[in-house]
Amino acid sequence: MQINPPYLMFLGDVPDKLAAKTAYGIVDWRREWCLGQLRLPGCQADLGLPDMTVAQAAGQGVKTLVLGIVNAGGVLNESWVPAILEALEAGMDVATGLHIRLGSDPRIAAAAAKHGRQLHDVRHSEQRFATGKGTKRSGMRLLTVGTDCSVGKKYTALALEKGMRERGFDADFRATGQTGVFISGRGVAIDAVVADFISGAVEWISPEAAPTHWDVVEGQGSLFHPSFAGVTMGLLHGAQPDAFVVCHEPTRTTMRGVKHPLPSIQEVIDLTIRCGQLTNPAIKPVGIAVNTQALGETEARAYLDKVAAEHGLPATDPIRFGVGSIVERLEAEFPKAGA
Amino acid sequence: MQINPPYLMFLGDVPDKLAAKTAYGIVDWRREWCLGQLRLPGCQADLGLPDMTVAQAAGQGVKTLVLGIVNAGGVLNESWVPAILEALEAGMDVATGLHIRLGSDPRIAAAAAKHGRQLHDVRHSEQRFATGKGTKRSGMRLLTVGTDCSVGKKYTALALEKGMRERGFDADFRATGQTGVFISGRGVAIDAVVADFISGAVEWISPEAAPTHWDVVEGQGSLFHPSFAGVTMGLLHGAQPDAFVVCHEPTRTTMRGVKHPLPSIQEVIDLTIRCGQLTNPAIKPVGIAVNTQALGETEARAYLDKVAAEHGLPATDPIRFGVGSIVERLEAEFPKAGA
Repeated sequence: MQINPPYLMFLGDVPDKLAAKTAYGIVDWRREWCLGQLRLPGCQADLGLPDMTVAQAAGQGVKTLVLGIVNAGGVLNESWVPAILEALEAGMDVATGLHIRLGSDPRIAAAAAKHGRQLHDVRHSEQRFATGKGTKRSGMRLLTVGTDCSVGKKYTALALEKGMRERGFDADFRATGQTGVFISGRGVAIDAVVADFISGAVEWISPEAAPTHWDVVEGQGSLFHPSFAGVTMGLLHGAQPDAFVVCHEPTRTTMRGVKHPLPSIQEVIDLTIRCGQLTNPAIKPVGIAVNTQALGETEARAYLDKVAAEHGLPATDPIRFGVGSIVERLEAEFPKAGA
Repeated sequence: MQINPPYLMFLGDVPDKLAAKTAYGIVDWRREWCLGQLRLPGCQADLGLPDMTVAQAAGQGVKTLVLGIVNAGGVLNESWVPAILEALEAGMDVATGLHIRLGSDPRIAAAAAKHGRQLHDVRHSEQRFATGKGTKRSGMRLLTVGTDCSVGKKYTALALEKGMRERGFDADFRATGQTGVFISGRGVAIDAVVADFISGAVEWISPEAAPTHWDVVEGQGSLFHPSFAGVTMGLLHGAQPDAFVVCHEPTRTTMRGVKHPLPSIQEVIDLTIRCGQLTNPAIKPVGIAVNTQALGETEARAYLDKVAAEHGLPATDPIRFGVGSIVERLEAEFPKAGA
């Protein structure tokens, strides 16, 4: 899936910021791709971008109208359809992360066909993959893993891409979830792939590369999450990471959506190495990324120091304190594939 | 997916037995459901069933025409279409494990709609599942796991269902692959489910049951197979087995379709316990099932004795020596949920 920037961000009539979470994520990481926002009456979100009509956006060279929004049921609101049709007529592609496919609306399907435009349903994968082969590919890979879902694996991977590039690494973020796909313009929502092809799809996402090139692969779920560990396992095998970073949220008591307690960071390190060795015998941890939002600054620093000492690894909050310590560890551990 | 027996087995014009492997598997385990076979000129397979026309089968009460056959590409041969249409007109459902969907042929789709019949594409899952919850369900569960794909997990599960029933257990085979679905008339080809729903689909396959009821769940893949371990992991978490049996083929040197060596039986036991404890802390091995086809009888017995002694578990070849020793171990380990 290749989504072409620049984007016009469509917010429709979302009732709050949360319903536009994906859109905010895209603006956070790819502000330069987002030329404007299109809001309908009643919209309660504001990305801080110039308000723009479809015609104005087309005049500024926008290539894709992005619906980075959700609503109950993931359906397509009737009030959104005119803007979508107008964008297709103006020569733009349209991309969504909704549950419903854009092409399931006959008017949208007809307009896309008539104007030769692409409809990107990021939550669905039309692509056919091979099954995973598990053989070592050239190039270096880092994977973010977690004690749970939604503990900052995407954010950490994006922060590492940025931090590694700033230190002279040849690094690319590789998306495995829908927001990540919008942010990188490429990738696969790996949880939407047919089960037989999880690791094969990740092998496609992170193909053979130059020996000193780093793919920073966005992790999903947790090996300890009873709903999604299968996805996490296939992703680990397909990514065959040389290095991994464990992401954690210290105030959470049960795993997202279920009643299970969180595993310890050490358990995640141990099982990730145990299973990851199947496709990369040299896999090793290079850092711990903690979301310390719920802690005061002194408390956060004390917590990170404790975690770092316990595991002999750099521990940081990527948002609060940056990823410099993890990038330094990467340079030390992989001197031939560094900056 | 509920496929209604009895079946008329359609062999078409398959060039050899291997192309009808699924059909042979169904006859092996559900001879009483298979009233006849329908063969076209040139067919090189014979299930040992009475040859029968669609009309004759309909007269005998056949409910489903089963295409338990494959060909290159998994497509629908034009020569098969008349018999399929005739079966639908005669009031039968039609079921296949082909890659192509029956309904993708407009003639077949129209005939099914006109006569109100079901088309079962066992390799595809139309069903919507919830994500796995991981909470303990009542009832007992046994899962077959393996050192590789195609080492007898389905055969062992079916042999255990039979052996357990003979000893007075209340036991049901639960299918997770296409041949298994035909054999039990119910189940899901778990590798065809969207990745996010692997464990959720298994929770649906093996629902809450009476405290002494056993589900014998067909395993898939291997936690050590780089192509399919994600499926195996989700299946393990969804099945939350109380007991598991490790299946093994001792002459194989690399895992099916890839270059990886096989793990040891001990490695499979250890990682299955490690990961399985997430949804069932009491998980334990109760036996080892070895396909000894390549060994002479003396050699086979010596190999099984060695494996049994090494692991402190009953080891048998279910085809050659039966599953009695494993069922005895089950009775000993679970006296309150036994015969």
